[in-house]
Amino acid sequence: MTDRLQQQLDFLMEIDRLKSVNRQTLITDGTRRENTAEHSWHLAMFAFVLAEHANEDVDLLHVLQLCLIHDIVEIDAGDTFAYDTTANSDKGEREERAADRLFGLLPADQHARLRALWEEYEAMETAESRFANAVDRMQPAMLNHMVGEMSTWRQHGISEPQAVKRLSPIGDGSDALWVHTQRIIRDAREHGHLQAE
Amino acid sequence: MTDRLQQQLDFLMEIDRLKSVNRQTLITDGTRRENTAEHSWHLAMFAFVLAEHANEDVDLLHVLQLCLIHDIVEIDAGDTFAYDTTANSDKGEREERAADRLFGLLPADQHARLRALWEEYEAMETAESRFANAVDRMQPAMLNHMVGEMSTWRQHGISEPQAVKRLSPIGDGSDALWVHTQRIIRDAREHGHLQAE
Repeated sequence: MTDRLQQQLDFLMEIDRLKSVNRQTLITDGTRRENTAEHSWHLAMFAFVLAEHANEDVDLLHVLQLCLIHDIVEIDAGDTFAYDTTANSDKGEREERAADRLFGLLPADQHARLRALWEEYEAMETAESRFANAVDRMQPAMLNHMVGEMSTWRQHGISEPQAVKRLSPIGDGSDALWVHTQRIIRDAREHGHLQAE
Repeated sequence: MTDRLQQQLDFLMEIDRLKSVNRQTLITDGTRRENTAEHSWHLAMFAFVLAEHANEDVDLLHVLQLCLIHDIVEIDAGDTFAYDTTANSDKGEREERAADRLFGLLPADQHARLRALWEEYEAMETAESRFANAVDRMQPAMLNHMVGEMSTWRQHGISEPQAVKRLSPIGDGSDALWVHTQRIIRDAREHGHLQAE
C-alpha cells in the first residue's frame, strides 16, 4: 500500500471518534444527546434539501464539504455549547491545535484543502460558508423546538434575546430560513421553553 | 411559510430517526454499535477523501449525495445484516415501501430526485454508484478489523469466503481499495476473526 493511501485511511479511522463527541442537543425522540458525527450528516441533508433557499447562488458540493468537515476539530477540542461564554473564550485556540493535528494526518495536499475548508467555514465570508452556518444554527433550533420541555434552551435557562443573537446569522445565509426560525423562537418563548428576557 | 418549505422541514425532522437505527458494526472504540446516520457521515468522508482511487472518473457531488441518502429507507425497513440471507430475501420489498413513504414527504420534484438517487445506488450501474457501494462495503470492514476480537465477523462466525463474496464488489469501484481490503481479510483470517471456511 502507498504511504498516501495509508495516511488517508489513518485519518478516516481517527475521525470515527467524532461519533463519541456529544452535543447538548437531544435527538427528536428525546432519548439521548446528539453526537457530532450524526449531526454532521443531518446538517449535510439540511443543506442538500434546502439549498434553493440560500440568499446567494451556492455551489452545493462546496456546501456539503463544509458541512461534513466543519466539526471534525471537536474530536480534540470537544463540543463547546453555543451559549457558554467562558468555554467560548479559548475555543479558537483549542480548535486551531485540533485542526493542525487532525487534518495533519492527511497527505499534504488534502491537509491544506480540508484546513482551508474549515477556515472558510469559520470565517463566514463566502456564500457557501454563510449558508452552511445558517443550517448549522437552524438544525439544533429545530431539534430544541421538537423536544419542547426537554430542550437545552429550557434546561440552561436561555432567553429569547440570547437565542435571537445566536441565531440571527441564519439570515445572512437565507432570509426564508431566518423567517421560519424566528417563528420557532416566538413559539418557544410562548411555551416557556425560552425565557422572555 | 410555504407548503414547500414545510414539506422539506417535515422530511428533515423525520429523517432524524436514522440516528436510532443501529447497525451490527461497532464504532472503533468498541463501546457501542454504530448507527446509520453517523455511518452515512463516515461514508461521505470516505468518498470525499478517497475519490482519487475510483476506477472511473466520478462526479464527487453525485457520490456524496448517494452516500448521504443511501440508507434513509432503514428508518422504516431497519438495517439488514449483510450476511443474513433470510432477512435479505424480503429486503427489496420492505425498502421500496420505505422509499415511497419517506421520500414522499418531500415536494414532488425532490421526491423524484432522491428516489432516483436511491435506485441508482441500489442498481450499481453508474460509476458514482459503484464507487459509493465500494466505500460502503469497505468502511464496515475497516471498523471490524479495528475492533478485532469484538468484530461482528467473529461474533457471527463469518468465514473468509463469505467475506470475499460480500466485499469483492469493492473492486468494481476501486482496484486500489479492493487490494487493501483483501489484505484486511487475510489479516482477519490469520487472527481468527474470520473463519477459514
